Amino acid sequence: MSNSYVASITAPVNIATLKYWGKRDTNLNLPTNSSISVTLDQADLKTTTSAMTSAEFKQDRLWLNGEEDLKLSQSKRLTQVLASLKEKRRLKEEKDSSLDKISTWFVHIVSVNNFPTAAGLASSAAGFAALVVCIAKLFQLDDDMTELSKIARQGSGSACRSLFGGFVAWEMGVSEDGSDSKAVEVAPLSHWPEMKACVLVACADKKDVSSTSGMQLTVKTSDLFQKRVDEVVPQRFNEMKKAINDKDFALFAELTMRDSNSFHATCLDSYPPIFYMNDTSKKIIKLVHLINAFYNETIVAYTYDAGPNAVLYYLEENELKLMSFIYTLFKDLSGWETKYSVEDLNKFIENYETLKLQDLELDTEIVKGCSKVILTRVGPGPLDTETVLINEQGLPKK
Amino acid sequence: MSNSYVASITAPVNIATLKYWGKRDTNLNLPTNSSISVTLDQADLKTTTSAMTSAEFKQDRLWLNGEEDLKLSQSKRLTQVLASLKEKRRLKEEKDSSLDKISTWFVHIVSVNNFPTAAGLASSAAGFAALVVCIAKLFQLDDDMTELSKIARQGSGSACRSLFGGFVAWEMGVSEDGSDSKAVEVAPLSHWPEMKACVLVACADKKDVSSTSGMQLTVKTSDLFQKRVDEVVPQRFNEMKKAINDKDFALFAELTMRDSNSFHATCLDSYPPIFYMNDTSKKIIKLVHLINAFYNETIVAYTYDAGPNAVLYYLEENELKLMSFIYTLFKDLSGWETKYSVEDLNKFIENYETLKLQDLELDTEIVKGCSKVILTRVGPGPLDTETVLINEQGLPKK
Repeated sequence: MSNSYVASITAPVNIATLKYWGKRDTNLNLPTNSSISVTLDQADLKTTTSAMTSAEFKQDRLWLNGEEDLKLSQSKRLTQVLASLKEKRRLKEEKDSSLDKISTWFVHIVSVNNFPTAAGLASSAAGFAALVVCIAKLFQLDDDMTELSKIARQGSGSACRSLFGGFVAWEMGVSEDGSDSKAVEVAPLSHWPEMKACVLVACADKKDVSSTSGMQLTVKTSDLFQKRVDEVVPQRFNEMKKAINDKDFALFAELTMRDSNSFHATCLDSYPPIFYMNDTSKKIIKLVHLINAFYNETIVAYTYDAGPNAVLYYLEENELKLMSFIYTLFKDLSGWETKYSVEDLNKFIENYETLKLQDLELDTEIVKGCSKVILTRVGPGPLDTETVLINEQGLPKK
Repeated sequence: MSNSYVASITAPVNIATLKYWGKRDTNLNLPTNSSISVTLDQADLKTTTSAMTSAEFKQDRLWLNGEEDLKLSQSKRLTQVLASLKEKRRLKEEKDSSLDKISTWFVHIVSVNNFPTAAGLASSAAGFAALVVCIAKLFQLDDDMTELSKIARQGSGSACRSLFGGFVAWEMGVSEDGSDSKAVEVAPLSHWPEMKACVLVACADKKDVSSTSGMQLTVKTSDLFQKRVDEVVPQRFNEMKKAINDKDFALFAELTMRDSNSFHATCLDSYPPIFYMNDTSKKIIKLVHLINAFYNETIVAYTYDAGPNAVLYYLEENELKLMSFIYTLFKDLSGWETKYSVEDLNKFIENYETLKLQDLELDTEIVKGCSKVILTRVGPGPLDTETVLINEQGLPKK
């Protein structure tokens, strides 16, 4: 196609350790509290997005995992994101008349996740992050990631945190126009690359309430919520940044677990109450506390988003200690073989026996509530890619 | 046995609608917040207690459901309760020298519940209420129930509320010595006798943490707890008293459900988190909200104590509406036949079909998490009884 531009990018999933729950402005996606997350490795979880713009396109279009998504293309949040990016491009064109006026053209976007959408794995965060960074690249914008994070935020709040690798904060800001509600790096991947994550994906239950309506119900009806927002999170935000900077895993873990519980407590305090965790989630929580008590050291933390999947954070040095429990109990799940050799896995079992963990009479039924394991670690922010998902006609490649 | 006295009494269970959770003084059982409960009918749930005192007894002894309970007899809380009652008797003897000096004698206590102990059905509340009232009767004390409630409170906090029938408040008080932490009647049974309760007893799970240690963990570790105690409960306490006085069921029900959720939210916000509800409890909560939504009227409320049993409150006039759902879904449980004729029960099923409730595709698996149903209603306070559980030797009758 003559006179067209193409760009491609990959973006990561992030899992909050200090939770975003509640909007003070639903239109601009301005949160009621700041949040912190760990960006996960794109080798395991990523969204790949290609975008093309051409004078011949008749409308903005979007394909998600092979299907055109008309609902999302026409959604207010996507329109708003595209409009913001086009406006940035227009200002650039105004300054430099040699540039093609592509801000007036339509874009086609093709996006693919390497993991199941809506499995409660923050796919919309990775999706909007990839989309914003991809189009910024397409438009050759000069804005830094923090600036772009303000646009990504309007697509999906937590997407703004996927614009950085490593350890990321979303500062809630105070402005009404959202100009200071943005993502910043707390520490890069290189600061604490030993941070690993093990996701125990729960058996698919119908989700209780979408996060979008759930959080608004909490804001409106929970009596305890305001305490969380006004006092609990602001203090924890500073403590968690310090724990990350100091690489203090025990503190990082405790804050992460407490914040997950606090967030789910405000869900339960909503009216009618919202439940995202199930009996298996509870069993995993108890298991984590048991493991830390067994070693008399905090080697693992759990966190739950708006769903029953457990994300466990731990340091590489404690892998044998942790996996002696987790692999032995969850060995029937798929996902282990992608990261460990048979020899590694046998070591976990051997250590379980050496430590006589069978004497703890752990609940071996726990695995029945889970469908698979995803083994990953802290990873980088959005990356350039040679993969191009869109063909010359501006349609998804077969 | 020459020179002995015997007294017998029955006392009721109460189920809080505004929860007691947290002590400001663990020795005197002084609570961090006021609470409200409904006293349940002794026809369905009661403790019967007989007490004997004799100059020949060698020590204070107690038999619970046929077995001597040495641990409880020697416990600080029982010793404290007996000492307080004996002191009251001693003062009486001081004033009237014609009285036997039984305050110096030992007592034997025999107590039986007509329901399983430790099924999470507030048996310790009924037990200590019965014990205190029975010994007050044995000692011919002149104190009123509010005065005696201060002693019962020292045995088991919520026991103080079982000293009245109908609708009862435990006023937390402010004194350090506990002299103003007492039960009072909000409204008698006769004010709102239409209040009924349906207890869905959950399949026995091992209890997460005892209430005693659970509430202290919450006090110590939950960031949200102070908000509940300082702001949420004081306001709700007044609103709930008003709802009872006005016989405003919709308001009473909403406050009851919100308070149950708020209490469990602070448990979840504890560290490590405490879980008393399970997936079945959650399903029953969702069912209750669905029933109220279906009729577009609040006809039923749930509440959960420190365990997974659901207590549903409803008014007699809405029995058909409620039981069309509850009986149809839980008909396999035992307990129905004690209160309803086959004809009644068939009406519930017929109404279910008339209303086409099968179209709602309710979760028919829900019954699997429950073991039985207890059908009861608001009832009177402690009652005299002709049943005597103790023989002339001061031992449990066979």
